[in-house]
Amino acid sequence: MSVRYDDEKLCHSFEPIHVEDVEDRTHESLHLLLDRKGPGHEFLGWMDLPLQSPEEFEPLSRVAEEIKSSGDLLVCVGIGGSYLGAKAVIHSLFPENDRIRFAGHHLSPLELSRLLKELENKDFYINVISKSGTTTEPGVAFRFLKQLAEKKYGKETSKRIIATTDASKGALRTLSEQEGYRTFTIPDNVGGRFSVLTPVGLLPVLATGGDLKKILKGAKAGYQQGSLDDRQNPAFRYARNRKILWKNGKAIEILATFEPQMHYLAEWWKQLFGESEGKEGKGLYPASADFTTDLHSLGQWIQEGTRNIFETFLVIEHYETDLAVEKSRQNLDGLDYLTGKKMSWINRKAYEGTRQAHEDGGVPVSAFYLDRLDEENLFELLVIFEFAIAIYGYTLGVNPFDQPGVEAYKKNMFKLLGK
Amino acid sequence: MSVRYDDEKLCHSFEPIHVEDVEDRTHESLHLLLDRKGPGHEFLGWMDLPLQSPEEFEPLSRVAEEIKSSGDLLVCVGIGGSYLGAKAVIHSLFPENDRIRFAGHHLSPLELSRLLKELENKDFYINVISKSGTTTEPGVAFRFLKQLAEKKYGKETSKRIIATTDASKGALRTLSEQEGYRTFTIPDNVGGRFSVLTPVGLLPVLATGGDLKKILKGAKAGYQQGSLDDRQNPAFRYARNRKILWKNGKAIEILATFEPQMHYLAEWWKQLFGESEGKEGKGLYPASADFTTDLHSLGQWIQEGTRNIFETFLVIEHYETDLAVEKSRQNLDGLDYLTGKKMSWINRKAYEGTRQAHEDGGVPVSAFYLDRLDEENLFELLVIFEFAIAIYGYTLGVNPFDQPGVEAYKKNMFKLLGK
Repeated sequence: MSVRYDDEKLCHSFEPIHVEDVEDRTHESLHLLLDRKGPGHEFLGWMDLPLQSPEEFEPLSRVAEEIKSSGDLLVCVGIGGSYLGAKAVIHSLFPENDRIRFAGHHLSPLELSRLLKELENKDFYINVISKSGTTTEPGVAFRFLKQLAEKKYGKETSKRIIATTDASKGALRTLSEQEGYRTFTIPDNVGGRFSVLTPVGLLPVLATGGDLKKILKGAKAGYQQGSLDDRQNPAFRYARNRKILWKNGKAIEILATFEPQMHYLAEWWKQLFGESEGKEGKGLYPASADFTTDLHSLGQWIQEGTRNIFETFLVIEHYETDLAVEKSRQNLDGLDYLTGKKMSWINRKAYEGTRQAHEDGGVPVSAFYLDRLDEENLFELLVIFEFAIAIYGYTLGVNPFDQPGVEAYKKNMFKLLGK
Repeated sequence: MSVRYDDEKLCHSFEPIHVEDVEDRTHESLHLLLDRKGPGHEFLGWMDLPLQSPEEFEPLSRVAEEIKSSGDLLVCVGIGGSYLGAKAVIHSLFPENDRIRFAGHHLSPLELSRLLKELENKDFYINVISKSGTTTEPGVAFRFLKQLAEKKYGKETSKRIIATTDASKGALRTLSEQEGYRTFTIPDNVGGRFSVLTPVGLLPVLATGGDLKKILKGAKAGYQQGSLDDRQNPAFRYARNRKILWKNGKAIEILATFEPQMHYLAEWWKQLFGESEGKEGKGLYPASADFTTDLHSLGQWIQEGTRNIFETFLVIEHYETDLAVEKSRQNLDGLDYLTGKKMSWINRKAYEGTRQAHEDGGVPVSAFYLDRLDEENLFELLVIFEFAIAIYGYTLGVNPFDQPGVEAYKKNMFKLLGK
C-alpha cells in the first residue's frame, strides 16, 4: 500500500451526529458494492480487473512491444472513457514521450487537419477504440486516418490498425474481421469510465513504456484498500466525507495537484465522478486545479469566494528527478534563502502553506499522498477512486454505473445532421 | 463589431421583476465604471489600452520581430496574469507554433528539468515577466534559465533576455539595469489579469506572429461595445444575466467552447472572473469545458446533475481551414450520410444540438459568437469580458480590481521555507 488518504483535520470539523448517520449509510453502500447487489451490479467487471495476472495479457503485451520497438507514432482514436484513462496515465508517467497522439475526441477541423498533415511524413500505427464503431467523433476521425493509412501502406494497412472493441457485435468488430485488423476486447460488464485496466487503457499505456507487472501490483493494492472495513478503507472514508460535505451544502469539489503532469489524471477523475454521480438533479460538481499555477488564477476565489467548495489534494511524496537552487551573484531576487534547497521541497512547502491557508479560509480539505509518481502508486489511486465513487453513488441513492443523460445532445445533433 | 452576444432565450426564462431590479443595478454599475468612480478606479488603465495606436509599440514591435526572425525559441517566464493572456492568445491563434515555451508558472522539478534539458541544445530568448521580480515561481525558474543562458552565451546573454517589469522600482528593474537587459514596462494602473494589451501579453504574441494592427482594431471594437448603453452593450447584458442567475441561486458558470485550441482562453477567463468576483464570500465559480470532448465526461453531469449551473458558449462562425467527409467503401460505420459535409458544419450542429439539450435539461444558456478565430475577434472578446466582469463586480458590491486573498498561501509558504 503506497497510497495514503489523510482526512484527519477534515473529520474534526464535522458534528459527530452527522458522521454517525452518514457512516451507517456508507457502510451499507460499501457492502452493497462488495456483495454486488446494488443498482448497476451487472457493470461491476472493473472490480475483477485488478486481480488479473500478467500472463492474461500476453497477446496485448506482444502488440504493445511491436509498436514500442517500431519507433513509429501511435494514434489513439477514442473519446471519453475510450481515451481519458490512457491519456491520464501516459501524461502522468511519460510526459516526455513524443510518439503518442490522440484523435477522435473532438470535432475541430483545425486540430484534425494539423494531425493529418503531421502524419503525412511519419510512420504510424492506429489504435481505434470504440465499443460500437459508430460514435460520431472517433468515427469521423477514423475515416480520415484510415484513408491516409491506406494511401500510405496499401495492403499492409491491416497490420497498422489495431481495434479495441466489442467481443462479437458492432460496426468496428465487423470491419476488423473484413479487413483483418488485430483486435482486443472491451468487456461487456465494464463501463467506459472504468475501463483503464482493460485493453482500452492498457494497450496505449504499454506501447508508451508502462510496466504491466507494476500496473497490476498497484491495481491489486487499490483493490485491497477498497475492500477493507469501513474506516480502514480510504475509499469508504473519502465517500463518507463527500457525503457529509454534500449534506452540509457544499456544491463543488476541487481536485488539486501540485504536479502539472497529473493534469489529465484530474480530467479522468472528472469523468469518473461526474458521470457516476451527476444524475437525478444531484451531485457535487467535479472541478480541478493545477497548483501552484492556478493559485495565481483561482487562488483568490478559493481563499475568499463563496464558501460552497471543498478541496482534495493529490501529493507526491518523493521525486526521482530534482533540482537544487544555486546561490546567485547578488541576491537581487531575494531568493538566496533557498540556496541548496530542492525544487521538490519548495513545492512541498507550497502545498503545506496552501492547505493551511485554505483551511483557515473555511475550505474543508483532505489529501491523497502517493509515495512516488509511478505505475504502482498511480493505479492504486485509480482503483481507490473507482471504489470511492461507486460507494458514494450508492449513498446518494443513484446508479453509479449508468449515464442516461449523455445521449441527449447526440439525439439533437443526429436530427440536425440529417441522420 | 465581429463579436455577437446571444442571450435571447436566456432572457425569456427570467421573471420580469428580477430583470428590472437587476437592470437598474447594472446600469449604475456600468456608469460607475465609465465615470471611473467605483472601487479600485485607480486600476482602470486597462480601459485606455484598446485606444493605443500601433506607433506607440514601435520599440516592442522591433524586439518581437528580432525574436521572430531569429528562429530561436522564446521562453516566457511568468505566472498568473503574467502568462495567461499570452498563452490564451497564442494557443488560440497559433497552436502550430512550436517555438514558444512557458516557465515559472509552477514549482515542479519534473517540468523544469525537462525544459532545461531541451534548451541545452537550442538557441533561445528569455522574456521574464514580473512586476516585482521576487515572486517565488518565476524567480526560481529565472535563476535556472539565466544560469543556463550565461553558460551558453557569456557576455552576449544580456541581448537574449528581455524583462517586462515595473517602470522604476523592484528587483527585476534593478537587475535589468545592472545587466543591461532590454525592458518593457507594466503600467502601475493595470492589474495582472487585465494586462494582455500591455507588453506582458503583446511581446510574446507579436513574437509568435500576432498582427498588432488587427489586435488593436479588435480591442477598440471591444472597447466600443463595452461602452454602449445598457441593452445595446453585450458586456452589460452578460453582467446583468450573471447577476440574475446568481440571485436565482446558480453557483457555477461553465464557459464552453467547441474549439479545443481555445482551451487557454477559458483559463485566462477563469482568472479574470474568479479573481475579480471571488471575494467577501461571494462569486460564481468559474469552470470551463472543451466540447465535444467533455460532453463525453462532464456531459452527463451538465445534462442531469444538480441544477446549480449555467453555461456560456464560445462559438466560431467561420473556419478558414476545413475538411470534408468522404464516402467510404461499405459504410460500416454508418457515417455515409455525412458524405461531403464539412467538419466545421458537423461541429456547428453538435453545438446546436448540445445547446438545445442543455436548455431542455434546465441549464440556462447564452453564447458569444466570433465571426472567425483571428486577432480582431479574439481581442474584441477579451475586452468585452474585461468590461463585463468589472460591471458585474460592481453589481455584487465588491472591488473587482483587487485580490486580497492571493497572499494567504504565500505567507504560510514563506514561513515554512524559512524566509
